[in-house]
Amino acid sequence: MTGSQDHLITADAKIKHETHGWRAKCLQDLIKFDFPIPKAFALSFSTVEKLTEGTSPQIEKVIDSFSEDALLVVRPSSQNPAWGGPSTILGIGMNDTKCRMFARKFGRQMAEALYLRFIQVFASAVDKLDIDFIEFIGHTDAIKKAMKTYATHSGRSFPQNPFDQLAGVLQSMALSWDTVSARILREAKGAPFDAQLGLVVQEMVLDKGTTECGSGFFRLINPETGLHQLTSQFVYGTSDNDFLKANGKTLSIAGDMQTSSMKDTVPQAYARLQVLAALAREKLCEEIQLEFKLCEGAVYILDGEKVSFTPQGAVRAAVRLAQDGIISSDDAVMRVEPALLNKLLHRQVASDSQRDIICYGIGASPGAATGRIVFTSAQAQASAARDEPCILVRRETTPDDVRGMHAADAVLTERGGLTSHAAVIGRGLGLPCIVGASSLDFRIPEEQLIAEDGRVFKVGDVITIDGSTGQVLVGEPDLVEASLDDSFQTLMEWADEARDIGVRANADTSEDARTARNFRAQGIGLCRTEHMFFETPRLTVMREMIFAETAKRRTEVIERLLPMQRNDFVQLFRIMEGCPVCIRLFDPPLHEFLPGSLSGQQELAHALDIPVQEVIKRVTEMAEYNPMLGLRGVRLGVTVPEIYEMQARAIFEATLEVSKDSTPVIPEIMIPLVSARREVELVKERVNAVSKAVQLEQGRIFDFRLGVMVETPRAALRAEEIADLVDFLSFGTNDLTQMTYGLSRDDAGRFMSDYVRKGVFAEDPFCMLDKDGVGELLRLGVERGRNARPDIILSICGEHGGNTESIAFCRDAGFDYVSCSPFRVPLACLSAAQLTISQKRREKH
Amino acid sequence: MTGSQDHLITADAKIKHETHGWRAKCLQDLIKFDFPIPKAFALSFSTVEKLTEGTSPQIEKVIDSFSEDALLVVRPSSQNPAWGGPSTILGIGMNDTKCRMFARKFGRQMAEALYLRFIQVFASAVDKLDIDFIEFIGHTDAIKKAMKTYATHSGRSFPQNPFDQLAGVLQSMALSWDTVSARILREAKGAPFDAQLGLVVQEMVLDKGTTECGSGFFRLINPETGLHQLTSQFVYGTSDNDFLKANGKTLSIAGDMQTSSMKDTVPQAYARLQVLAALAREKLCEEIQLEFKLCEGAVYILDGEKVSFTPQGAVRAAVRLAQDGIISSDDAVMRVEPALLNKLLHRQVASDSQRDIICYGIGASPGAATGRIVFTSAQAQASAARDEPCILVRRETTPDDVRGMHAADAVLTERGGLTSHAAVIGRGLGLPCIVGASSLDFRIPEEQLIAEDGRVFKVGDVITIDGSTGQVLVGEPDLVEASLDDSFQTLMEWADEARDIGVRANADTSEDARTARNFRAQGIGLCRTEHMFFETPRLTVMREMIFAETAKRRTEVIERLLPMQRNDFVQLFRIMEGCPVCIRLFDPPLHEFLPGSLSGQQELAHALDIPVQEVIKRVTEMAEYNPMLGLRGVRLGVTVPEIYEMQARAIFEATLEVSKDSTPVIPEIMIPLVSARREVELVKERVNAVSKAVQLEQGRIFDFRLGVMVETPRAALRAEEIADLVDFLSFGTNDLTQMTYGLSRDDAGRFMSDYVRKGVFAEDPFCMLDKDGVGELLRLGVERGRNARPDIILSICGEHGGNTESIAFCRDAGFDYVSCSPFRVPLACLSAAQLTISQKRREKH
Repeated sequence: MTGSQDHLITADAKIKHETHGWRAKCLQDLIKFDFPIPKAFALSFSTVEKLTEGTSPQIEKVIDSFSEDALLVVRPSSQNPAWGGPSTILGIGMNDTKCRMFARKFGRQMAEALYLRFIQVFASAVDKLDIDFIEFIGHTDAIKKAMKTYATHSGRSFPQNPFDQLAGVLQSMALSWDTVSARILREAKGAPFDAQLGLVVQEMVLDKGTTECGSGFFRLINPETGLHQLTSQFVYGTSDNDFLKANGKTLSIAGDMQTSSMKDTVPQAYARLQVLAALAREKLCEEIQLEFKLCEGAVYILDGEKVSFTPQGAVRAAVRLAQDGIISSDDAVMRVEPALLNKLLHRQVASDSQRDIICYGIGASPGAATGRIVFTSAQAQASAARDEPCILVRRETTPDDVRGMHAADAVLTERGGLTSHAAVIGRGLGLPCIVGASSLDFRIPEEQLIAEDGRVFKVGDVITIDGSTGQVLVGEPDLVEASLDDSFQTLMEWADEARDIGVRANADTSEDARTARNFRAQGIGLCRTEHMFFETPRLTVMREMIFAETAKRRTEVIERLLPMQRNDFVQLFRIMEGCPVCIRLFDPPLHEFLPGSLSGQQELAHALDIPVQEVIKRVTEMAEYNPMLGLRGVRLGVTVPEIYEMQARAIFEATLEVSKDSTPVIPEIMIPLVSARREVELVKERVNAVSKAVQLEQGRIFDFRLGVMVETPRAALRAEEIADLVDFLSFGTNDLTQMTYGLSRDDAGRFMSDYVRKGVFAEDPFCMLDKDGVGELLRLGVERGRNARPDIILSICGEHGGNTESIAFCRDAGFDYVSCSPFRVPLACLSAAQLTISQKRREKH
Repeated sequence: MTGSQDHLITADAKIKHETHGWRAKCLQDLIKFDFPIPKAFALSFSTVEKLTEGTSPQIEKVIDSFSEDALLVVRPSSQNPAWGGPSTILGIGMNDTKCRMFARKFGRQMAEALYLRFIQVFASAVDKLDIDFIEFIGHTDAIKKAMKTYATHSGRSFPQNPFDQLAGVLQSMALSWDTVSARILREAKGAPFDAQLGLVVQEMVLDKGTTECGSGFFRLINPETGLHQLTSQFVYGTSDNDFLKANGKTLSIAGDMQTSSMKDTVPQAYARLQVLAALAREKLCEEIQLEFKLCEGAVYILDGEKVSFTPQGAVRAAVRLAQDGIISSDDAVMRVEPALLNKLLHRQVASDSQRDIICYGIGASPGAATGRIVFTSAQAQASAARDEPCILVRRETTPDDVRGMHAADAVLTERGGLTSHAAVIGRGLGLPCIVGASSLDFRIPEEQLIAEDGRVFKVGDVITIDGSTGQVLVGEPDLVEASLDDSFQTLMEWADEARDIGVRANADTSEDARTARNFRAQGIGLCRTEHMFFETPRLTVMREMIFAETAKRRTEVIERLLPMQRNDFVQLFRIMEGCPVCIRLFDPPLHEFLPGSLSGQQELAHALDIPVQEVIKRVTEMAEYNPMLGLRGVRLGVTVPEIYEMQARAIFEATLEVSKDSTPVIPEIMIPLVSARREVELVKERVNAVSKAVQLEQGRIFDFRLGVMVETPRAALRAEEIADLVDFLSFGTNDLTQMTYGLSRDDAGRFMSDYVRKGVFAEDPFCMLDKDGVGELLRLGVERGRNARPDIILSICGEHGGNTESIAFCRDAGFDYVSCSPFRVPLACLSAAQLTISQKRREKH
């Protein structure tokens, strides 16, 4: 079969993306629309694969397709140009005979330069020689010297036969596609494991380079901004377009000319290129960059490429194509890679900025921020009070540090992974965050940070956190602002129209909630109430409660939290303007509220007026071996029911207060860490009782929904008997993943990278939902939940909620919505829309 | 329908255990074999239930069944006599008329005594009066005075009509069956929630009590020992058997007589009773205690009861019944309650010993031991060296304390529950253990234990731990030795013949292994190798390994462990004599091997000759938030492969060494904490490589089996792809339960009792396998494992392995064997046999 797919590229040759690659297909499309394209030949994926096995099919056929005098160029043509490929190789066919011929035609210097550059490229690509042949240019007997050098190092004389040259070049390009580094690079860009390569062989356009000659590329758009603006490059007066890309030095000697200059110098060529570029955009439905050659006044199009945009550019270009009627709005939605939005929503270190990097950590929350180093939450707050940006540096963060994180502009920790406390809170706050920066020496007590090179950083020293790359930088590099322009808004509107699964945000604070609304979240899918209790004076009250001697005293203390908690919910409800707000009842173990340090314990002893020994005794008693699996969540709700009762009352009173002057609020109350039906029954009874009491007291009615956070494997397995009692189930995939794997996300950082590198886990299951294990529990949970209650509302609210793969999974499994951190909401909306559109299109076919 | 089941008890009346209770059925059986039984009437369960509703069906019919002059006695008849019931009530029918009649017949004093005692019982049971009518006996106008007192307190005159009397008595007995305390008592003995009561009404045998009169009970067997030995009681010369049970004072006045005396005094009656007792044993296929009445030379059998045995007695009696051909060996196996064996295998506090109890904790490992208090492992070892029994007292135990536990005679801890470290190790060692003794004040640093009453106990003070009841006793009460006599061995042989599921033991040490063999375990199902590393000098080597700077150095250090580890396995294999030994590879997190105290850290710094700060830094770095879910098990095997390689080599070299001089050993190697197939692949590759290397080095071949410990939910869900790689799957239900519930067993103690009391969990899932949640994962694991490999060996090796319900579950699910701590092996064998026999019998019907 090999070879039957290899064709000269003509308007009616059988050439497809899937068999010949994007470049071959693009050239064919341009040929169809009568673009002046030099003769080109497409080698299919299967032919190129054969080449790696050492056979050389079709080479005769290729050679025969071109004139005997031609020089050839070979370009890679993979299915997606973003996946990269071997470098283009020019000048194939050059030999002693042709050199003499070209010397007659264009002059000896140019002929020899052409020859030497081919020898250079061939020796490097085919013979893997690291020798500089270019330096011979201009020497006496340049070719002779080069030939001798080549023979000495390669052990053979330079091949004169175009067949041997082409065979060598094609095979070397085929082989380079199969190297490990090439595979890793393209897989990083989303290529599948078995991605293949096609090759395009094209005749070179050659001239003397004297009259209206030159080469360059031409595009109608600015790839940085996505605005329509000619951003082309043109090298005038040279015959050789090789230098444009391959040799930076030569390019700078030739000098750049503004397109306006080209317009002045070669006005007809310029006008012709404008027409062609506009035609290419319209016909190929893409922003296309044309590589062209101007040869004695005639314009040749050598190649077309997709313009490679910045995130902002990509969004604007896609929206503009749709607004111009070239593509549909669905197409525009499909064009933008969701992950790009991550960069769009945050400030970045400018790409041309100098970087003085002192550490590579794990970029756990994207965006960049510059500020002065602080080592404690108190310092961060003081800094914020002075309006001075600061970076909070901790070995790891705990709930105690949340206040500091709110005050800081970025966070840097020594320990933890992508789902550590710092990372999760950081993403929630849209705060740039680097974790696992273990190559730095964190001396928190001494308030010093020591780099591997010995440099010492102290409080007040300025550093920059690049949370997108994980780099910790010294000083203040240039930052580029986030820009959510009209195109972005338009794209998100189109995405909202297209998608068929809801997107909510995980939001704990008013600030989170406002971000969520700005990003068009349809509600709050997870409001973790515990963060509300870590601020003084609430923290003090919580501690007093823990030390309460009797249940009565405990109730009294908790009641002091009621007005504060009610106010929290009033604010959230107001911001969310009638959108659903799902409030998770108190979840963490109580010991998180006790001070860990002796000084903290002494302070508490003073505050409570009891001996410090008593405080220490309580702290010791309440310590847990595995807090993750301890007395928390609904277990607290069952054993210390006063907390949930206070929270339910706060929610209901806030509901009535806000419903008074706007859309009625229907709050959703979620019970965490359930593992048995009876837990839900007990909490439900109490919540219902509080609801009745509040309605009676205020003489007004309200509705609410009760639900369960499914985060233990047992809750998923027993979803049928649990669903029966509630209105919704929300799957907490963080904890569910931890328990299904028996793996604490806080401790996994230590070996996860090793594990992923060795392929033990295909992916970190805290980043990418484990469809096989955790996924099966989700499917069982959904099926069983729906069995008991067909109209039950289903969602996921773990960190996976914003991830494309998880959203695909949730759509397939029939979830009603996903919930993710506010800054991931646009990404989730876009992913969801793409999934819906893809499915619709598949179903059409 | 009510009433149609109520009959006079005759040989052909329709009377069944399930409708009339054990006593009614027993009386009918005796009547069938012509025992001299006074006329009796059986009221069915449903009739008694009606009585509680206030209706009095059937009472006329009962009254009419007896002669007008008769006095009646009512006895409870529940389905199982062990479930208890209301006290027997005698003398019904007594009134003024009959009193006069009996005065004529037996003399006034006896008649009045009879009457007064009836009034006493009636007033107490029916009218709930707390008045002493007995004191009137012998007074002038005794009856008159009693009648007046009764009327004053009850508000009515004493009922004279036998109908009213009987109706009152029956209803009061029916009601007392329904009280909460009665229900709790019988449920503790295994009665179902809806257990019902029948009643037997019988005519009393009355005489003057002058010639050859008396009453008593007669049994052929000693209930303490189970040996055949007449142990009967006989009160001679009184007409009234009421006093035997109801009134201890009177009994002691009458005095006990040895049966030999009875033989001398009333030889015919004695001989008649011997015949009847032997007949009852043979016909009822039980050891029966006959209640009899001797009335002017004639013997009446009033009642038959099952003899209530001690555990030892129960075993011996059942075996003897089978050996005498009265029941089958299967019957004998079915007769012994497996839980009884728990007591049989350990020393106990003698039942009549004085108990000075200072605390009620959780009895976590059965048996009793007396010893001097020690507060550290070092003290325990010193004590053991002096051959002085000691009790190790700790707030909680850690792997560091295992040495101390080996040296101690019992363990007492402040914290923890039934599956805490102390409890699990205690049961494994057969060491009496009380955990959660939180009412004592544990002052470990001061080396004091303070009781709630203020008594202070110091090092060297003698206490006794009753691990069966959870009582901590002061001083040295009498202890009863464990006794594993021939009967026990015979019973276990019969159980082994009957059962169809294997039983192995969890055994980590030679001592464990010997216990396992003594108890007829069929192999070791779980050998945890980590305990082997907590003893010096190995602990030191482990620590050196943790501080090794390079992989090479680490390998060198680990290699020093090889000979020691090999010797461990040589010993185990020798003891187990060719029985399978399943060795779990190293499981715990490495930080468990580092010292927690500053002094320990300083010591280690000295030993390694590094600054103590470095030690502290390492300890801090390696600390984990949730060690349960951290870097342990196969995760260590993958990231620090040298440990598993050393262990595999030790196992294989030991295999060859032991196989040289006895049955070839086929070791089983088990990989812990697996959650992904690739983990198994990686370990399998390395283990296979070590196996090949050892075979090559020694020029001899051996076989081994590789398996996976399924203890994460994911491993159960993915059992199909995992099973494909291995020979066996062993389900670790401890960890699987922890992860399925998201519940750490070490932390659950704090609220588990609350949870079980509130019915949130029907049972502590660490004690009783959760069939719904964890059970579903087991079923999925089994099904999927078998799909991939039909011949795969399946087992469970968690603490549940020894539990009847779990064994039933495992049999149904098709497991090959269960594994449990050595001291539970007999219990497991017996349970398994009973399940098999029950099923065979069900299938027959």
